[in-house]
Amino acid sequence: MKKAFVIGIGAGNPDYMTIQAINALNSVDVFFVFEKGEDKDDLVRMRKEICDRFIKDRKYRFFTVRSPARDATTPSYKAGVQSWHQERAEILKSFIKDEMREGECAAFLTWGDPTLYDSTLRILQNVRGDGSLEFDCEIIPGISSIQALAARHNVALNTIGESIHITTGRKLAEELPDSDSIIVMLDSGEGLKAAENEDVDIFWGAYLGTEYEILVSGKMSEVAGDIQRIRKQARAERGWIMDTYLLRRNS
Amino acid sequence: MKKAFVIGIGAGNPDYMTIQAINALNSVDVFFVFEKGEDKDDLVRMRKEICDRFIKDRKYRFFTVRSPARDATTPSYKAGVQSWHQERAEILKSFIKDEMREGECAAFLTWGDPTLYDSTLRILQNVRGDGSLEFDCEIIPGISSIQALAARHNVALNTIGESIHITTGRKLAEELPDSDSIIVMLDSGEGLKAAENEDVDIFWGAYLGTEYEILVSGKMSEVAGDIQRIRKQARAERGWIMDTYLLRRNS
Repeated sequence: MKKAFVIGIGAGNPDYMTIQAINALNSVDVFFVFEKGEDKDDLVRMRKEICDRFIKDRKYRFFTVRSPARDATTPSYKAGVQSWHQERAEILKSFIKDEMREGECAAFLTWGDPTLYDSTLRILQNVRGDGSLEFDCEIIPGISSIQALAARHNVALNTIGESIHITTGRKLAEELPDSDSIIVMLDSGEGLKAAENEDVDIFWGAYLGTEYEILVSGKMSEVAGDIQRIRKQARAERGWIMDTYLLRRNS
Repeated sequence: MKKAFVIGIGAGNPDYMTIQAINALNSVDVFFVFEKGEDKDDLVRMRKEICDRFIKDRKYRFFTVRSPARDATTPSYKAGVQSWHQERAEILKSFIKDEMREGECAAFLTWGDPTLYDSTLRILQNVRGDGSLEFDCEIIPGISSIQALAARHNVALNTIGESIHITTGRKLAEELPDSDSIIVMLDSGEGLKAAENEDVDIFWGAYLGTEYEILVSGKMSEVAGDIQRIRKQARAERGWIMDTYLLRRNS
């Protein structure tokens, strides 16, 4: 049987790698990589550094495919994403069928945790969808950017006995959820802009875990402008940004 | 300067330990443990096994104190928890003052991730509250039971572009949140009971990551009874249970 690992490599810091993830890395024959064609060379480099550092005495290969672009003109965001997943599933199906030998082990390295706002699990479900291709699949959890954010700010994600709402920049721009702890991921900037006048504390982090990490926290009214300026400048300098933040309502 | 690490040791599986957590363990002089006096010997044993396995060539000591009991008769849940935190903060303060030598490093090992429904960070904030005691504090994230749950069930925590609501059994029993992905922690059984007639899929796990791990998933209407029976039996057998689950609304 062929096997696929989906390995969470943690958010940025190679020391976030777990023993389980390192053991999994050391049984992999081929790493599958979708090249995004974006200016995220840093991310590709960090993945290769993790393989170099943690894989001992084992030969492995990389199989890279140019990722199809998501059609952002599709009227429904969800339908657009679903059809993009399906396109990538077809590519993966050919890879598993034609590029893996029987008994081989493939791996997908996901930033942070594979179960949190990452498409790999869904794409693999599409690959298996029609039942024509059988393979084992094992998911290895990783330290997410949310956990890195909270640890670096020394702040708990929840208040006593209360709930936590995790959402996207897109949804935050529609409405501020009714929770005293709101975590925002995948924000292109629209969520932050929409929340800049709210009476909340913000704990913000970019490039978490990496050597480029930036942390800002304080009352939103006092730091919103700084964060937007820092965010714009960092994005221009590095060519990309990944950031996440916690909004804490003042009770 | 004295230093305190709060180290997330992951949920159950010692292989969930990160390189960062292992490095931190290896700089600790004294581990502080609140003994709960409950029948959770398994949990104490698992912590000691982690120290035995990962600490190399270093002497360390354990400092154990009987934890004060939370006064469950306080009318306000939050006030009760706050006063319990304050009591434990006083104990910790004496420990840091009197039991640690200058330059020593203490550690608190937290199950899962220290920023997610764990009181250690809040207690340490209370210790520092009046500014009379200075010490460094570093938080090391760990794989939470939520991530272990999702990985073991091979299910993403979010649906495409949608939010995630993390809540407690107590709050779930009051109201089912308006989110298609609801994660429940700290449920003494009341949340599960309250949700048993909802039109949702459930992904349930107990003793996640450990040798006693139990997983059940399916339509709530079909598996709710099984989960309640298994839960009751496991609790009686082991003397304790820690479980968590994801509710996914059918769209």
